Amino acid sequence: MLIVLKKEAAQKEIDELLENIRKAGYNPDFLPGAERTAIGIRGNTKYIDEAELHLNNAVKEVLHVTKPYKLVSREWRIQDTLIRLKNGVTFGGSNPPVIIAGPCSVESETHVFETAECLFKNKVKAIRGGAFKPRTSPYAFQGLGVEGLKYLRKAADQFGLAVVTELLHLETLDEVVRYADMIQVGARNMQNFEMLRRLGEIRKPVLLKRGMAATIEEFLLAAEYILAGGNDQVVLCERGIRTFETATRNTLDLNAVAYIREVSHLPIIVDPSHGTGRASLVAPLTRAAIAAGAAGVIIEIHKEPSKALSDGFQTLNFQQFEELLRSISLARSESDAR
Amino acid sequence: MLIVLKKEAAQKEIDELLENIRKAGYNPDFLPGAERTAIGIRGNTKYIDEAELHLNNAVKEVLHVTKPYKLVSREWRIQDTLIRLKNGVTFGGSNPPVIIAGPCSVESETHVFETAECLFKNKVKAIRGGAFKPRTSPYAFQGLGVEGLKYLRKAADQFGLAVVTELLHLETLDEVVRYADMIQVGARNMQNFEMLRRLGEIRKPVLLKRGMAATIEEFLLAAEYILAGGNDQVVLCERGIRTFETATRNTLDLNAVAYIREVSHLPIIVDPSHGTGRASLVAPLTRAAIAAGAAGVIIEIHKEPSKALSDGFQTLNFQQFEELLRSISLARSESDAR
Amino acid sequence: MLIVLKKEAAQKEIDELLENIRKAGYNPDFLPGAERTAIGIRGNTKYIDEAELHLNNAVKEVLHVTKPYKLVSREWRIQDTLIRLKNGVTFGGSNPPVIIAGPCSVESETHVFETAECLFKNKVKAIRGGAFKPRTSPYAFQGLGVEGLKYLRKAADQFGLAVVTELLHLETLDEVVRYADMIQVGARNMQNFEMLRRLGEIRKPVLLKRGMAATIEEFLLAAEYILAGGNDQVVLCERGIRTFETATRNTLDLNAVAYIREVSHLPIIVDPSHGTGRASLVAPLTRAAIAAGAAGVIIEIHKEPSKALSDGFQTLNFQQFEELLRSISLARSESDAR
Amino acid sequence: MLIVLKKEAAQKEIDELLENIRKAGYNPDFLPGAERTAIGIRGNTKYIDEAELHLNNAVKEVLHVTKPYKLVSREWRIQDTLIRLKNGVTFGGSNPPVIIAGPCSVESETHVFETAECLFKNKVKAIRGGAFKPRTSPYAFQGLGVEGLKYLRKAADQFGLAVVTELLHLETLDEVVRYADMIQVGARNMQNFEMLRRLGEIRKPVLLKRGMAATIEEFLLAAEYILAGGNDQVVLCERGIRTFETATRNTLDLNAVAYIREVSHLPIIVDPSHGTGRASLVAPLTRAAIAAGAAGVIIEIHKEPSKALSDGFQTLNFQQFEELLRSISLARSESDAR
Repeated sequence: MLIVLKKEAAQKEIDELLENIRKAGYNPDFLPGAERTAIGIRGNTKYIDEAELHLNNAVKEVLHVTKPYKLVSREWRIQDTLIRLKNGVTFGGSNPPVIIAGPCSVESETHVFETAECLFKNKVKAIRGGAFKPRTSPYAFQGLGVEGLKYLRKAADQFGLAVVTELLHLETLDEVVRYADMIQVGARNMQNFEMLRRLGEIRKPVLLKRGMAATIEEFLLAAEYILAGGNDQVVLCERGIRTFETATRNTLDLNAVAYIREVSHLPIIVDPSHGTGRASLVAPLTRAAIAAGAAGVIIEIHKEPSKALSDGFQTLNFQQFEELLRSISLARSESDAR
Repeated sequence: MLIVLKKEAAQKEIDELLENIRKAGYNPDFLPGAERTAIGIRGNTKYIDEAELHLNNAVKEVLHVTKPYKLVSREWRIQDTLIRLKNGVTFGGSNPPVIIAGPCSVESETHVFETAECLFKNKVKAIRGGAFKPRTSPYAFQGLGVEGLKYLRKAADQFGLAVVTELLHLETLDEVVRYADMIQVGARNMQNFEMLRRLGEIRKPVLLKRGMAATIEEFLLAAEYILAGGNDQVVLCERGIRTFETATRNTLDLNAVAYIREVSHLPIIVDPSHGTGRASLVAPLTRAAIAAGAAGVIIEIHKEPSKALSDGFQTLNFQQFEELLRSISLARSESDAR
Repeated sequence: MLIVLKKEAAQKEIDELLENIRKAGYNPDFLPGAERTAIGIRGNTKYIDEAELHLNNAVKEVLHVTKPYKLVSREWRIQDTLIRLKNGVTFGGSNPPVIIAGPCSVESETHVFETAECLFKNKVKAIRGGAFKPRTSPYAFQGLGVEGLKYLRKAADQFGLAVVTELLHLETLDEVVRYADMIQVGARNMQNFEMLRRLGEIRKPVLLKRGMAATIEEFLLAAEYILAGGNDQVVLCERGIRTFETATRNTLDLNAVAYIREVSHLPIIVDPSHGTGRASLVAPLTRAAIAAGAAGVIIEIHKEPSKALSDGFQTLNFQQFEELLRSISLARSESDAR
Repeated sequence: MLIVLKKEAAQKEIDELLENIRKAGYNPDFLPGAERTAIGIRGNTKYIDEAELHLNNAVKEVLHVTKPYKLVSREWRIQDTLIRLKNGVTFGGSNPPVIIAGPCSVESETHVFETAECLFKNKVKAIRGGAFKPRTSPYAFQGLGVEGLKYLRKAADQFGLAVVTELLHLETLDEVVRYADMIQVGARNMQNFEMLRRLGEIRKPVLLKRGMAATIEEFLLAAEYILAGGNDQVVLCERGIRTFETATRNTLDLNAVAYIREVSHLPIIVDPSHGTGRASLVAPLTRAAIAAGAAGVIIEIHKEPSKALSDGFQTLNFQQFEELLRSISLARSESDAR
């Protein structure tokens, strides 16, 4: 950490600052310069809250040299973390990309079973589906609730699938933990720190989606919360960020996939459905995500997207999904050969 | 609502679409054009979920003519809504801008009382302070909890102030409702729909902060959730949005203040502390917010900002705060004269 | 085009508006609704400037149904446009992705020849290099000028390469046209309309880079300028957009690649060097770009990136570049097999 | 400048780096730390191009302590720079905010004279108007050219006004210099470095608009180009930045106004017409801009905005403009009293 001082800083203020840093247990280096004087703090192995340093009027800027996250970093654990779901599906390392697919919202028992059967036939091993739906408008469909969770579980058990579903609010934590194999934290909850803390205490894998305006650093810090709580079974998910572009619903940030693989040991998957918001873009961006190094994808599919109760525009029908799987499997066999 | 059809849409698909719209209870207009054919839906007085229309393969784009919010709009209620706190402080209409001030986090009883006394001496009638703190890093100070709420209440009662404090998660709803006069929904919870729903059921004023990547439309829809639940005591708060600019913590969007005054009857205040992230910018942006038509401001102050446990960089000390109040009061007396 | 009227619009104003639309040669449809009245204009085959309609006080909003671009659209020309450089390199259609590589700035004759030889050995057929450099700081290296162009031409001729270089300002148009096989318009000049107009008059292929804050629609309109001027040899280039994320220099928008392939017949390539700003991310994002459907990539390479006079951080050395080519060629042979 | 080294950096690489820094004339400080080792460079009074340091494989990150601009900074010149136009209008210091007003495009001689007369009657001393128009679409009105400049000059001379007009491309530099009193660089040309260089050589005031995706640092660096060339008569102009918000055309960044007043001695004005894109928001945001400390505003007005050939939606008519002036003058008399 480097603390840059104001040009006009009084000696008394600087002395006070140095004193406070020493009291906090650190060893400040005084670094005078031609235009700026700075104070370096080295050897701080825990994250220093800037304010806790009792920064005073002499301080112009604080530059962090060490990143604020730790447990999620490659420096903490050099090898890829592997996340294994109950039915054997494994994210990360040299495993082939995991496909998770299913409807945006669970709409009925029949609907879930038809989807599960489609997945089974195509050797896809994980089903997604929302039982509780966060909706921007209070007048839109809000989900089936616990009933939806039960349908997912039943269909998954029959077809040997793992269930991935969102924990929308903490009140339903017990139910979601009971029925799901992997608990999704939605983009809007990425900085719901109480939720992250509670998920740190459970022993099930978490799928943490990036907030639509979250930096990569904030995304990793959100994962850090879960790991710091004791649960290191976290899969990250890039799902598009909000930018000025309006032709697509979000801007899928595949830079983040390659970058996170560098700086973190956690697996990262991609959601091309929300990341693009247009069904016709899902297939090319799925292939791009895998080429960028994603450990998997999570895709919205529906027997009849035009009749889906939510997100119809970005949803593939079963046939489009099967075509996509074929194109990925070709790429996969090639990448095995590499 | 205008549904634009694909050039190559089959007649069969179009017929199906028209049929579905009619089934949903609407009266479609068929509008053939030289390059594009469109279907108009007029007279829809409730929000239509695009997917519920059973959109089919013929559809290229959907354009909304009517805005998706209703209860918060000026068209629904033409006059400014006034929000009155227990001690008489009133937001909106021709009332002078309300000043809310206090520390980012409640740190100790003494600390709260010193702040409350400063407010009292300066005729400021509302104190803010966080008892539960959302922190980006799991290693930073997380707040005093219920103890902090009690300190706020006690100090407010002694000095005739209203208490404005954040509801961080629903588990603490009862306590926050008990101790606060106005319940703040933080930027990260703006789309916590379960929280919005529950706040629709209580009978205390809500201060709803704009999410850092929320559009004005999403912001108003979040307020709509609370009003739709039965609580129309909502004050909006612009607190800066996330953009590419990094010189300031956020980009304060004063366009939003003037725009929302046009389209909504709800009062909107401004948070120049988070909106700028730099203490030296708080005073000029407070004056700018009021000039743009804000119904008030919420400002972080601290006896010794350099010792604050959070947000020290953007916090005014008591003397800076008093200078700011003087400059506002001059502007206020002028605006009365207008 | 749909013109939405204000609720309180006076009949006189509406009549005037209808009259003006008719005068402009269009046939307005009057579409009364329960909450809003709108006027539709169908059959407008040229772009209507909103202001030219003499919009009056009755108008609330204007919605464009038809896109404002025409010549660049798939509807205008359904088949992929192929762009062929003098030495046979061809962009678009079913051609394999074109690789363009070279240094950010041309630094010396030796330097260019070493690069050209490396390309030749690796069967890469197009060299890039900046002779005139736009630099954010007035104190940074500004390029070799015409001398740099000559080195590029000489090296390209010896090794059978095509030269791709940037036209930084119009004063150098003649020289750039003389020495280059493909004229690059940099991101900062994407809306330099005079430059676009002049490039519409020449008969050499243009490589048009997307502005860092340009929407896809503005990007296509910039290409429309060149096509409208008579030159339809335009290759588009996605090079990253500016967002709130700072871990990478830009956010590479691969959604745009897949989207533009849908709506336009022009080939689009990707610049993963500027799009990421980090050498270690260039290889995975190159593979992702090709998987998303890019017609090629343009990559910064340098014999010793750490000694490059500009952009060293995002530049591959020759060995890294060769490894990348091998991984692409594997993917390419697979995609041929599909 | 602080150079952070990789954990795994080889001693040989570090030695080489230190050697290169010394060769470049700087004195490196070696700062070993528990987790990271860094090299500090102090006393560098000119901007160091990162690449010029011959950074090698050992380098992880480079942090700038000193800002890259110099001549535009408050540290270089502590007092406000005053910019005086030929007719006495003065920007900066304790001068009242300058009002510049006029149409987006010059449309006819009559039109310019009517506008000039309106300004004269209202004691406004500077007229704006575009003779050459940058238009996103090749099919929109492109301006009257030199004829437009002559109309502006003639009307300005008759009514004692200063002419502010845009230099769209360098080919017209001589004409624009001849007819204008202040030469505007539009947002799209903010990083047209050749234009900036040429404007550094003339001796007329320049109005430099912020690019719509330019950071404050880039904005100040663009001004630095002009000052470095020898022309220190630069007025900055905040005109809104591009963000995810679409309710307004741009997001007016008034933080930038207060921030730039802190870090630079150059006056900064605001363009609320482009900054909001909606006529109804121009008045409140003009008042906000002045309250934030702007040295002036530049406003689009038109006798009949609905008939304007460009930007009609964001243009005030003469009556709205006069009302705005009255509200500003009240605020101004108050601020004098302060």
